[in-house]
Amino acid sequence: MNSTTPASDVAALMTEMGRAARIASAHMAKASAAKKNKALKVLAALLRSHVDALKPANELDLARARHAGMAAPLVDRLRLDQKTLETCAQGCEQLAAMGDVIGEISGMIQQPSGIRVGQMRVPIGVFGMVFESRPNVTIEAASLAIKSGNACILRGGSEAIESNRALAALVQQALTAADLPPEAVQLVATTDRAAVGALITMPAFVDVVIPRGGKGLIERISSEAKVPVIKHLDGNCHTFVDDSADMAMAVRLADNAKTQKYSPCNATESLLVTVAAAPDFLPAIAAIYAEKGVEMRCCPQALKWVSGAAGAVVTAAVDEDWYAEYLAPIISIKVVSDVDAAIAHINTYSSHHTDAIVTSNHVHAQRFLREVDSASVMVNTSTRFADGFEYGLGAEIGISTDKFHARGPVGVLGLTSLKYVVLGQGEIRA
Amino acid sequence: MNSTTPASDVAALMTEMGRAARIASAHMAKASAAKKNKALKVLAALLRSHVDALKPANELDLARARHAGMAAPLVDRLRLDQKTLETCAQGCEQLAAMGDVIGEISGMIQQPSGIRVGQMRVPIGVFGMVFESRPNVTIEAASLAIKSGNACILRGGSEAIESNRALAALVQQALTAADLPPEAVQLVATTDRAAVGALITMPAFVDVVIPRGGKGLIERISSEAKVPVIKHLDGNCHTFVDDSADMAMAVRLADNAKTQKYSPCNATESLLVTVAAAPDFLPAIAAIYAEKGVEMRCCPQALKWVSGAAGAVVTAAVDEDWYAEYLAPIISIKVVSDVDAAIAHINTYSSHHTDAIVTSNHVHAQRFLREVDSASVMVNTSTRFADGFEYGLGAEIGISTDKFHARGPVGVLGLTSLKYVVLGQGEIRA
Repeated sequence: MNSTTPASDVAALMTEMGRAARIASAHMAKASAAKKNKALKVLAALLRSHVDALKPANELDLARARHAGMAAPLVDRLRLDQKTLETCAQGCEQLAAMGDVIGEISGMIQQPSGIRVGQMRVPIGVFGMVFESRPNVTIEAASLAIKSGNACILRGGSEAIESNRALAALVQQALTAADLPPEAVQLVATTDRAAVGALITMPAFVDVVIPRGGKGLIERISSEAKVPVIKHLDGNCHTFVDDSADMAMAVRLADNAKTQKYSPCNATESLLVTVAAAPDFLPAIAAIYAEKGVEMRCCPQALKWVSGAAGAVVTAAVDEDWYAEYLAPIISIKVVSDVDAAIAHINTYSSHHTDAIVTSNHVHAQRFLREVDSASVMVNTSTRFADGFEYGLGAEIGISTDKFHARGPVGVLGLTSLKYVVLGQGEIRA
Repeated sequence: MNSTTPASDVAALMTEMGRAARIASAHMAKASAAKKNKALKVLAALLRSHVDALKPANELDLARARHAGMAAPLVDRLRLDQKTLETCAQGCEQLAAMGDVIGEISGMIQQPSGIRVGQMRVPIGVFGMVFESRPNVTIEAASLAIKSGNACILRGGSEAIESNRALAALVQQALTAADLPPEAVQLVATTDRAAVGALITMPAFVDVVIPRGGKGLIERISSEAKVPVIKHLDGNCHTFVDDSADMAMAVRLADNAKTQKYSPCNATESLLVTVAAAPDFLPAIAAIYAEKGVEMRCCPQALKWVSGAAGAVVTAAVDEDWYAEYLAPIISIKVVSDVDAAIAHINTYSSHHTDAIVTSNHVHAQRFLREVDSASVMVNTSTRFADGFEYGLGAEIGISTDKFHARGPVGVLGLTSLKYVVLGQGEIRA
């Protein structure tokens, strides 16, 4: 199918996939940990043994992308080489090595009536995923679905369609080898955009949709979806340097949080520093930023402390800068009176993704953790650590900037739900 | 304001309330347990000392309801007498006596990088609630908001507007007495329906909406909301009697689950029994249902076992009966081959609310708990226990039939979220 497929055919295709996913999800929900782990290990082996076999499909995508004039960094993300596939295989093996959370019962407490009430962790059911043109995401999503006992329907970027088809075939082969239903992981084979519209409006078959990609895509899916969405909007992350901060540590962290990599959502985009810390801290960090070519957009007070750095590109910040997610060698810098002003600024301008304080003051650290309303709040470390792998989740399917259901990096647990389990001995309600 | 208020005024009013709620929520989120518990205890005292003072407002609602020809049971639900207010006061005191879950940090584990990562429980922020004409819900929602550190905007049924206004004034008095912002609990003072439309489409100010009422209201709110909805649709609950069930227990439970009260959502609406258990079980339960005037809608096999009961009203079930939530003295009865058939039937027809097995077989009990896809799964007890109070949640704001975020009875925890807390000692990302 392609973009000229009649809409009714796309709707019928998606309904059929939805129905198959729902049936598969019931099998996955009761599958043993052994079967799920076997599927993951077989998949890892298949990825390693198919490095060459996957090349033709991937070459088709790469050639089409180059022909269409896709920028080199984007073409690179399409590439399925031995290194990418090895990383995917290791991810599957890490998940297989983790304990199974499905079926775990917690909090079983006897109530006055005599019944015992606890909660059992169960899969969500079926998740849909709409993602950018990175074929490795197909494996990440599939492996998380398998481990969490869910079924999933994957819709990757059309630029990666050949690679995704080849990878999805390996996933289904691994599922079959483990005596699990291959329909547990289905790839939408059409590149027709109507498929996305159908996927996000089938509450009977899809329990949650996870979009990954640009802000425009995520906003469109959120506004049109008829099922819950785990969404990640922007990452305007802050690092705040308090009066009592260890200055060498503050400089090291502000450097790493901004310059270790410019494109990730967890890079620091805005630096706050107290009036008292500014004279020591700002000239030191400004020298590093100047050397690395990071433009500094400053409040009037910050301006005077950073302008002395040799080669510094310094401009006056405007209000939009405090909201901005640059994803580039640019940082906004503001001098604040104290920790209260920093918390107030962050809660006003932050995108509630990740914010860090550098301090030696215990009370300030505790207040920052409690009062900053963000998915990740940090003390004395780099915002760049906000990541499912660094948090020990094994893998992440996305990062949620919402407060509902899952917040922050979403791993296996974010794809589960808790149901109540009640054990009685014939008790009745009076 | 009334139903002739211009739409723009309603929108402006709701925006103003939303803004005030958002500001109040930041104060509530960092409020100490002592202040929140003080507010709850003061509210309990005010409810007790205002039994007489609340009468005039309540009488206005009652008189209008009677004048409008409201049915007597509905008028009864409007009444704020000493007993109702005492129950509300005790609910507030119970919440005050419970530990505070806000700020609790769990799972703090050191990662290979050196950072320690855990999660802190925090309030959701602001919840909106749209509910039927029961003024006691105003107190339940307000007290749960206070305990969980949230702000809320309440929109009760217009028939209870005078009572709700009087109660909301007491809630705000209690908040003020505890040095908490009175805007943490706001009642929508207009009965204009446009207010609901505004409340459910303000994601900047409202984090989640909880509708309580008829299925039509809940479906409408779910389809129009631009914020997440914790929704409770129907309760088609099952009791399944297995081969190995203790027959006296099975009869006692099937009786209680159906007849203890007909209107609650956790009443059993459908009875399943194995072929082997039917000859003992069905005549015994049929005699009780016949005596209590419960109509039995049966599959062909069940028909022959229940028809002998003196005075029994027995009809042949049609497919709609297996889906039905009667909320009345009617029950559907089906004979199934075994536990597999029972689980398959329940997963097809149940509304995923609450389903119970009566059995002595450990393997069947475990399979039922794991494989029945419902918010509450029970062994050897009455479905009528599916309730926040009976589950030890202290109080419930509603029952969710969704899998996302909160499932089953929703208490304080369902109004909270987890944020990641990361503690470092200057670690940077390599």
